[in-house]
Amino acid sequence: VTKQTPMFNRLALIGVGLIGGSIARAARALSLVETIVATSRSEPTRQRIAELGLADEVADSAADAVADADLVIVSVPIGACGPVAREIGPHLKLGAIVSDVGSVKGDVIAAMGPHIPPGVHFIPGHPVAGTEHSGPDAGFAELFVNRWCILTPPPNVDRRAIERLSHFWEAFGANVEIMSAEHHDLVLAVTSHVPHLIAYTIVGTAFDLRLVTESEILKYSASGFRDFTRIAASDPTMWRDIFLHNKDAVLEVLGRFNEDLATLTRAVRRGDGETLFNLFAERRAIRRGMVQLDSGKPAPDFQSAESKPPHDPIPRPYAAFDDD
Amino acid sequence: VTKQTPMFNRLALIGVGLIGGSIARAARALSLVETIVATSRSEPTRQRIAELGLADEVADSAADAVADADLVIVSVPIGACGPVAREIGPHLKLGAIVSDVGSVKGDVIAAMGPHIPPGVHFIPGHPVAGTEHSGPDAGFAELFVNRWCILTPPPNVDRRAIERLSHFWEAFGANVEIMSAEHHDLVLAVTSHVPHLIAYTIVGTAFDLRLVTESEILKYSASGFRDFTRIAASDPTMWRDIFLHNKDAVLEVLGRFNEDLATLTRAVRRGDGETLFNLFAERRAIRRGMVQLDSGKPAPDFQSAESKPPHDPIPRPYAAFDDD
Repeated sequence: VTKQTPMFNRLALIGVGLIGGSIARAARALSLVETIVATSRSEPTRQRIAELGLADEVADSAADAVADADLVIVSVPIGACGPVAREIGPHLKLGAIVSDVGSVKGDVIAAMGPHIPPGVHFIPGHPVAGTEHSGPDAGFAELFVNRWCILTPPPNVDRRAIERLSHFWEAFGANVEIMSAEHHDLVLAVTSHVPHLIAYTIVGTAFDLRLVTESEILKYSASGFRDFTRIAASDPTMWRDIFLHNKDAVLEVLGRFNEDLATLTRAVRRGDGETLFNLFAERRAIRRGMVQLDSGKPAPDFQSAESKPPHDPIPRPYAAFDDD
Repeated sequence: VTKQTPMFNRLALIGVGLIGGSIARAARALSLVETIVATSRSEPTRQRIAELGLADEVADSAADAVADADLVIVSVPIGACGPVAREIGPHLKLGAIVSDVGSVKGDVIAAMGPHIPPGVHFIPGHPVAGTEHSGPDAGFAELFVNRWCILTPPPNVDRRAIERLSHFWEAFGANVEIMSAEHHDLVLAVTSHVPHLIAYTIVGTAFDLRLVTESEILKYSASGFRDFTRIAASDPTMWRDIFLHNKDAVLEVLGRFNEDLATLTRAVRRGDGETLFNLFAERRAIRRGMVQLDSGKPAPDFQSAESKPPHDPIPRPYAAFDDD
């Protein structure tokens, strides 16, 4: 993949954490935009954005940042999306595209939508990518390579605007999928939100037990527990907001999980080896099916990225992870 | 670490899967024993052991394999440990050490113990190491490096025999810990058995939901779900036996987990953001504490290993995994 002619003149990033910081680095490395203007609610973060050289301009407020921007990406915790939309609404340029990166879409659309004026294209988005790190230093240009970005445009959004935003994400190496906000929220409840809630729970259970020492849990965590603690290391504010804003889908999936866990618990209690074996064998087959899925899509050219990521670009590389 | 003078004359391996195959490779690479004799209940596996050159001799039966052996390691599914002990008991050499590698110790001791004759040192063991692979091809010499091996000797076992077996595992790069069988089973229920049961459950829940397509689960699994599917890919026979034989500890920990999950579920249902945030922040701190634990112990010298592992020696290297 060679460098692009700029797709947008002026990109405004509202919030520069892991995701916003990665968008800034990727857009810069690939020359996807002429100018990047970034802002954060916190003064230290604005200073850090400037120090890291993540943007051409650092604005003092979201309202200032969006003036004259062609593409606005709001990357703040879900609970802050509504207030940000209220602030930027009156300052958005006619014809601009406004998107976000939140892990819940229904509530974000309800909170942001009413503040986006006619003539501005509101296309909510969710790049399904992340690490357990957060903050502007955690971002890196390759974060979205071979990841999915889900767009959930309301029914009447301009088709060309959707295409422009899709191409922007595809340039980062992402695969773009379009679906309804409701379906997105259910898919993510299954693949991400409930797994996280369960991981948080079991980490707490282990340490609250008092039957086993903390040192013992740490020593023997390689035998399974460690996979859960990694998940449980994610940003607490982000996750609080996810569970507050995707309540219905999360409770639905949790209810099913509880029924299934009761079935397995009963099999353990009864010593029903046949049921246990059959369930385990079925799950193993699922995992084997998954491993065959990863494709070898070529990555974009990030060679000219100005700043190197502060750590290994992809913390758990596919190659090492999918070794069966 | 340089090569050792042989610690044992004749090592008998009963069962050669991931663990038995790794013991064979490591013992050979480090010249820890003069002669390795191995056997498996299955004829194709015995052929494969010979093809891979894992042993100096391949015996047709467990009884044949243990004749004249100084160290016998039984690496079969937990449910098969009792029958194996019954078979080998009459053929064990006076003064020999008999150990196993099972993930449950109480039931294994109850099943094997009565068949081990006086004058033979029975020291149950559990190397806390593994991958989701199984079979003789899956083994590799470095499997135990920086892992823990727990020994659970009954009270009256000869102290020197415990020391000899400890040194054998330490030569592989493992850290040895000694505890009671009861405590082992509780520790493993917390750090391994219950996490696996939960992982198996959620993988099944996701695919049984019918609200989300299989393809969607696969596409978006990087957002959390994938960590669970990896765990759920382990050997179904081994895991069935673990749950049949560590029932009490597993049910105790599961009960606590269910209480904790109910608390989190209630917080989601009530939209109680403060409770969610506090719990998530506490779990994150736990994870950060864990990451500081890994030590930089030097690895043994495996350079002269005759057979290379069929895949990356350590599927999820510490360096890539503990990146924060």
